[in-house]
Amino acid sequence: MSENTVEIDVLHFDPSTGLRRQSRSVIREKPITLFINETELVTLLCTGHHLDELAAGFLFAEGFLKSPKDILGIEIDEANGQVHVTCSRDTGAVNQLWTKRTVTSGCGKGTLFYFALDALRGKRVRSDLRLDPRNIVNRMEDLHRMSDTYRLTHGVHNTALADAGEILVFRDDIGRHNAVDMIVGHCFLNAIPLRDKLLVTTGRLTSEMLIKAAKLGIPILVSRNTATTLAIELAKTLHITLIGHVRAGKFVVYSGEERIVSD
Amino acid sequence: MSENTVEIDVLHFDPSTGLRRQSRSVIREKPITLFINETELVTLLCTGHHLDELAAGFLFAEGFLKSPKDILGIEIDEANGQVHVTCSRDTGAVNQLWTKRTVTSGCGKGTLFYFALDALRGKRVRSDLRLDPRNIVNRMEDLHRMSDTYRLTHGVHNTALADAGEILVFRDDIGRHNAVDMIVGHCFLNAIPLRDKLLVTTGRLTSEMLIKAAKLGIPILVSRNTATTLAIELAKTLHITLIGHVRAGKFVVYSGEERIVSD
Repeated sequence: MSENTVEIDVLHFDPSTGLRRQSRSVIREKPITLFINETELVTLLCTGHHLDELAAGFLFAEGFLKSPKDILGIEIDEANGQVHVTCSRDTGAVNQLWTKRTVTSGCGKGTLFYFALDALRGKRVRSDLRLDPRNIVNRMEDLHRMSDTYRLTHGVHNTALADAGEILVFRDDIGRHNAVDMIVGHCFLNAIPLRDKLLVTTGRLTSEMLIKAAKLGIPILVSRNTATTLAIELAKTLHITLIGHVRAGKFVVYSGEERIVSD
Repeated sequence: MSENTVEIDVLHFDPSTGLRRQSRSVIREKPITLFINETELVTLLCTGHHLDELAAGFLFAEGFLKSPKDILGIEIDEANGQVHVTCSRDTGAVNQLWTKRTVTSGCGKGTLFYFALDALRGKRVRSDLRLDPRNIVNRMEDLHRMSDTYRLTHGVHNTALADAGEILVFRDDIGRHNAVDMIVGHCFLNAIPLRDKLLVTTGRLTSEMLIKAAKLGIPILVSRNTATTLAIELAKTLHITLIGHVRAGKFVVYSGEERIVSD
């Protein structure tokens, strides 16, 4: 049992035994409200860990922060489910734009969609990173090995930052966006260069994933899941290598295939 | 091939054959911008079908609409990716509240989370619906049989409204929330009574799913996937039967077990 899971008493049905009482690990879901300079911005429904990274990653991805130096402090109030970020920049203008153009679609949600899209047009990702197909398959296997919470609950998406040889940062969360935002936040807070890295995830590759990767300049995005048409289109425009359906040693390259080099 | 999928040329890696060119069906992802009384509200990233239901369901779930009579017209502009809803009610106040308290977390996102929660406290779902375990298992099997798009792309979530004996409405989308919103919209537009129905889905059971079901008064929620702690807590408060992990004829009842009656 991890601190992200809770043991819950359930009724289990199995045709061979009928209905029986059982104990199950369930993934924790917590509402965390994010404040920037004392203004309430948003409530994230998440697992509730790495809240400094989640806050920083979300604020960077949404345009509130430009540099780690913008952050004067991050205060986590676990008891009340709040994160307070103090920022040296005036975030009023971004806040106005953000609340005005908020975009949503459950799993396929993307705040500030068109705004982000406009800003990215023409900002192609430059990278010399080249991978052998085995690098892709092995990093996905590493990702699966690292997720104790998934094995316990089947209730999280896993995401990792990796280079060709190993996983560098691992995060999981009930929301695939939260997991990515934590990685983004970690890299943002620690000024980790990303042009030679890949992002490996279990979540589907939708347009918002592409936008987040492009903002960071990550050249290769890998998922065990599939991609959407819009994600593929954006990947081609932004020169991101998009790889999906990594299962049983096989995978599919949707775009940027020149970065995958077989011996 | 369905109209929700596109054939895309990809590179496929298989250790036995190496890298080879292949054609794949990919799920369509489209940004659809929703206007209410000529005010731009939100852009949904979705598959792009049943847009009248998606708009009506979203607007009802978010509190803009109270009754189908509120809708004077729904105009779909496919070419520009827009849906314009004309509403007889003054939606200004809801719009202000909505933009102010927008809530987000990718897969775990829930607009107006606390507001919805407050409104629902004490609104327990009343229903005489009782199901045999076989009803649960069979309706999930029906759901899987109905999804051609999933078989082609593995890129959608499937959701259905059902009664004990059969599936009544089926919808799929890249976003699990979109699929639910379409069902909500369908029931809202057609004034379908829901106290004797169940909602069957492939998406995880998070708090937002619970809130949507509770708003409609649906007594039983079923998923092939798992539930979160917050969803279980809400289900107990709202007296909703929550069933997860329906796979290989087995399942787990997280709450409201008195509605599941074995012979």
